[in-house]
Amino acid sequence: MELKQPYLLFLGDAADSLAAKVAQGIKTWRPEACMGQIRLENCHADVGLKDVTIQEAAKAGAKTLVIGVANRGGIISKEWVSVLLEALDAGMDLAAGLHNRLNDIPELVESAARNGCKLYDVRFPTQTYPVASGKKRSGKRVLTVGTDCSVGKMYTSLAIEKELKDRGVDADFRATGQTGILISGAGVSADAVVADFISGAIETISPANSDGHWDVIEGQGSLFHASFAGVTTGLIHGAQADALVLCHEPTRTHMRGLPEYALPGLKECMERNIATASLTNPKVQFVGVSINTSGLEEKAALEYMDKVESELGLPVVDPFRQGVARIVDRLLEL
Amino acid sequence: MELKQPYLLFLGDAADSLAAKVAQGIKTWRPEACMGQIRLENCHADVGLKDVTIQEAAKAGAKTLVIGVANRGGIISKEWVSVLLEALDAGMDLAAGLHNRLNDIPELVESAARNGCKLYDVRFPTQTYPVASGKKRSGKRVLTVGTDCSVGKMYTSLAIEKELKDRGVDADFRATGQTGILISGAGVSADAVVADFISGAIETISPANSDGHWDVIEGQGSLFHASFAGVTTGLIHGAQADALVLCHEPTRTHMRGLPEYALPGLKECMERNIATASLTNPKVQFVGVSINTSGLEEKAALEYMDKVESELGLPVVDPFRQGVARIVDRLLEL
Repeated sequence: MELKQPYLLFLGDAADSLAAKVAQGIKTWRPEACMGQIRLENCHADVGLKDVTIQEAAKAGAKTLVIGVANRGGIISKEWVSVLLEALDAGMDLAAGLHNRLNDIPELVESAARNGCKLYDVRFPTQTYPVASGKKRSGKRVLTVGTDCSVGKMYTSLAIEKELKDRGVDADFRATGQTGILISGAGVSADAVVADFISGAIETISPANSDGHWDVIEGQGSLFHASFAGVTTGLIHGAQADALVLCHEPTRTHMRGLPEYALPGLKECMERNIATASLTNPKVQFVGVSINTSGLEEKAALEYMDKVESELGLPVVDPFRQGVARIVDRLLEL
Repeated sequence: MELKQPYLLFLGDAADSLAAKVAQGIKTWRPEACMGQIRLENCHADVGLKDVTIQEAAKAGAKTLVIGVANRGGIISKEWVSVLLEALDAGMDLAAGLHNRLNDIPELVESAARNGCKLYDVRFPTQTYPVASGKKRSGKRVLTVGTDCSVGKMYTSLAIEKELKDRGVDADFRATGQTGILISGAGVSADAVVADFISGAIETISPANSDGHWDVIEGQGSLFHASFAGVTTGLIHGAQADALVLCHEPTRTHMRGLPEYALPGLKECMERNIATASLTNPKVQFVGVSINTSGLEEKAALEYMDKVESELGLPVVDPFRQGVARIVDRLLEL
């Protein structure tokens, strides 16, 4: 799967900017891939692209309409469908990371077939993956891991990819979740793969590469998450990472969705990740810690990061506040 | 899913007794569920049940024909299909744990629908499972874990269930692989579940129970298997085991299917399993070690087990040679 660019971002009837965060992510990390946005009348989001009609977008060469908005109540409304049909008639593919599938809407399936276009439901893998071989692959890999789900692994990974590319280092972000896939146009939704093939899927999306090349692999979940640690384990083993970056959100009071479960300590979490990752790459090491300090005032954030840095002896940054340059410095010393 | 008993075991054209090991397992562990066997002309296996025709089996009340033989080259032959159609016409359900599905053979699907019978492909889950809650459940649980795949986890689990029942303890084997499902008539093929739901599937098949009840949960894979450790991790977290039994095959020279990977040491393997299982049950402990010594002469086997027992301070048995009574003694002390 490889989504065709340039993208037209569909913001639909987003209730606020948070509802359009997928579109915002694509615009932030792949501005060169985005040719415009399309919004319905009652849209309250704006990612700062030119507003275009389907016809204008098609003339300007848009190849894929990407649904960059979370739909309310899991229903794809009639208003959405009429825009999507217009895009198909104009020859565009459609891509979405929603829980409900484009491929389950008969009118879209029929129109796509008639127009020779594709419908990509990136949350659901369509290809089969092999069982992981565990064989060492050439090229270098860095993987983000976390104390919990939703603590900034995708953002940190994309920031590391950008910093590497800005320095002229050959690098590729490898997406393992639906938003990451829509941003980069490829990848696998690791949690939606059949369990036997988690590691094999990661081996597949991060194939052997040239010696100086870095894959920046988006992590998922946490080894300490009682619902999802199986996915995390398989992902870590498939990644064969040379370097790990720990991601953490310091105001979290319990594991996401699990009120009975406390977050692990950072050192404990790092030790467990090293123990797990060592199976497929005995030389793995941490090169930094990425803290999502959006829940803290700047002074408290800086104090917290200073404390963690002195405790762990690794570069500690908030990628949003300070960028990941110090982590990438350490990475390139490997 | 719950397979209806009694079973008629189909041995087909098994090339040797190994090819019919699924049927043998069902006969060994659920003799009371088996009313007979059916063999084609060139069958070289015999599990010691009465040979019956489909008509005789139907008259005697057989409810499910279970395919207890591995098919050659992944093809379900015409000879097989004619027997299976006859069974459906006689009102029996069909159950199989093959890689190729009964549900992919149109004649069987059509006949099952016409006769009001079911086709169970137990390798492939048909129900959806919830995301694991991680919430403590009542009742007690023992889980088999291993240094590698295929080292005797199912056999050990079934032996523990039998020993518990023989002592009048309320216990249930909980199957997590296709052979175990065919033996017990229920369960989930853990490696075939969508990755997000591994732990949730195990929580589902081992629900809350009375305080004195033991679930004996069949483990899968190994935390040290680079292809499958994600499945193992999710299974361990969903199991919330109070007790673990380590399974090992001492003549294995490398991890199954992975020539580059050595087996872990027993102590290392136990420590990693305790660390993983502690997340959802901090009181978890090992109660024994089960060694598959089929590759050793008796003297060497006994010496090896003595050595391991003195090193680990736990009951060490080969369930096939000595039974699991000593492990169950330790289990019931908890």
